[in-house]
Amino acid sequence: MATPNTSTPEPTYHFNTEVRVRLPETDAMGIVFHGNYFTFLDVGRVDYLMNLGLTENNRPIRDFDNVVVAGHLDFRAPARLHDLLAIDVRMREIGGASFTFEFRIRDKRSNVVVAEGYTTHCAVDAEFQPMRVPEAFREVIAKFERWDQ
Amino acid sequence: MATPNTSTPEPTYHFNTEVRVRLPETDAMGIVFHGNYFTFLDVGRVDYLMNLGLTENNRPIRDFDNVVVAGHLDFRAPARLHDLLAIDVRMREIGGASFTFEFRIRDKRSNVVVAEGYTTHCAVDAEFQPMRVPEAFREVIAKFERWDQ
Amino acid sequence: MATPNTSTPEPTYHFNTEVRVRLPETDAMGIVFHGNYFTFLDVGRVDYLMNLGLTENNRPIRDFDNVVVAGHLDFRAPARLHDLLAIDVRMREIGGASFTFEFRIRDKRSNVVVAEGYTTHCAVDAEFQPMRVPEAFREVIAKFERWDQ
Amino acid sequence: MATPNTSTPEPTYHFNTEVRVRLPETDAMGIVFHGNYFTFLDVGRVDYLMNLGLTENNRPIRDFDNVVVAGHLDFRAPARLHDLLAIDVRMREIGGASFTFEFRIRDKRSNVVVAEGYTTHCAVDAEFQPMRVPEAFREVIAKFERWDQ
Repeated sequence: MATPNTSTPEPTYHFNTEVRVRLPETDAMGIVFHGNYFTFLDVGRVDYLMNLGLTENNRPIRDFDNVVVAGHLDFRAPARLHDLLAIDVRMREIGGASFTFEFRIRDKRSNVVVAEGYTTHCAVDAEFQPMRVPEAFREVIAKFERWDQ
Repeated sequence: MATPNTSTPEPTYHFNTEVRVRLPETDAMGIVFHGNYFTFLDVGRVDYLMNLGLTENNRPIRDFDNVVVAGHLDFRAPARLHDLLAIDVRMREIGGASFTFEFRIRDKRSNVVVAEGYTTHCAVDAEFQPMRVPEAFREVIAKFERWDQ
Repeated sequence: MATPNTSTPEPTYHFNTEVRVRLPETDAMGIVFHGNYFTFLDVGRVDYLMNLGLTENNRPIRDFDNVVVAGHLDFRAPARLHDLLAIDVRMREIGGASFTFEFRIRDKRSNVVVAEGYTTHCAVDAEFQPMRVPEAFREVIAKFERWDQ
Repeated sequence: MATPNTSTPEPTYHFNTEVRVRLPETDAMGIVFHGNYFTFLDVGRVDYLMNLGLTENNRPIRDFDNVVVAGHLDFRAPARLHDLLAIDVRMREIGGASFTFEFRIRDKRSNVVVAEGYTTHCAVDAEFQPMRVPEAFREVIAKFERWDQ
């Protein structure tokens, strides 16, 4: 009997985007080089923020700068040339000066999970010093992620 | 009086695709690193060939392998983070064992030409030896490019 | 009084190599794109294994294949164009089918820690199935890392 | 009888540097992705300019900015993972506002030529407008390349 596995609650994603694996993203092992998945996460973040009107022209985030302070990925299955990958993106939490995006990358055709992980960012001012994440940013994200419900 | 410049006939492109500039494709000069445009050309070639049914799963071209034997780009204007780039792609010519793609990359919003150039490829067999470009490939391309007219 | 901080024991590294930051590894923020540090870790691993005679020609590890199953980095300080980075590399542990490399990246001139993290690998056979890490590999690493002492 | 081929005079290179091919620089065809050779050319240029004291900290050239306006490579033979590549670098010519570097990439062990080509650069001011290549730069290069002899 095939039933859904209900024992491990998974995070709910309300946003996804996609990329097709390019030749230079693969390596001589015939699969995507693991470091290149962080590029896919970047595409996911940008599309997530664009969708919420939080980017502007050539700035990753419109109202403040940020630096990545941590990145983690668990690699579940390899991806290969031309594979279409769905990138699920959610904001996991926003702290004082930091915020953490969570990601799940799936092979779009098979729905196999390729990788899962997160990146943690720190809001910084013009001198690269930590600053509080602006309220407007928090509100837009919280509404989209339905944190108030 | 603004009139079209008719003195220099430009190549006619019947296919284009697009990419959005990703953060790791830019460099510390604030613009796309010139070598990364060859990645954009690769995206253009793949999408051109996919559109004609000439790719297959994880193979760049379905019926034979190829190696790039020359690449050239003239850089006309810089591209920056998040810019949408239109990649115009055409097959310029198919010789005995070689074929040459021609490209024009334009900023999609301004229609400014960012780069122009070509890549020349050699059809190779399983031992990486040159082989004649298969007829089926020639026919599909010639029909699409309207070389018989 | 300036004294060494002895409260937090750090891992001891017996091997390091170095890279100089290349222009395409930086991004429009003026610093190294975070995902590119995984390329530096790869350089560190290869040089560590080469130093022990564990690589061969075009194979990352001579006697068996491996896939990366997890990667993590904490980013402590930005690195910029032309910076010389020292990459400290050690094997943290070897399990049944998996093994974990640990890394510390330092700015060579200032000795400031730029990033720290690890990559976990799984030994796989020709069908990409997990296999036990070969004894010869364990012995060479254990001797170098002085695990028997 | 094996004699040197004297019919085609080759450019004389007075400088070379080297790179070892990294895993993410290879692709699923098992060879270095052609666009990545432009990264190797960049390494060659930086090392050539550093050797002449013409770089400074995080600036590609100490006394003025430049943009790449053309790049060309002919690919003669594939390079693979871990291959050591020698990059021969010379300044071919310096015009009013532009200058052209010429490159030859060889497999270091076999001396087989892997790729040959050039990049043309334009000196630009703070507004990205073309400016005359400074005399000091010309003199240092001309002396090294022995153009006066």
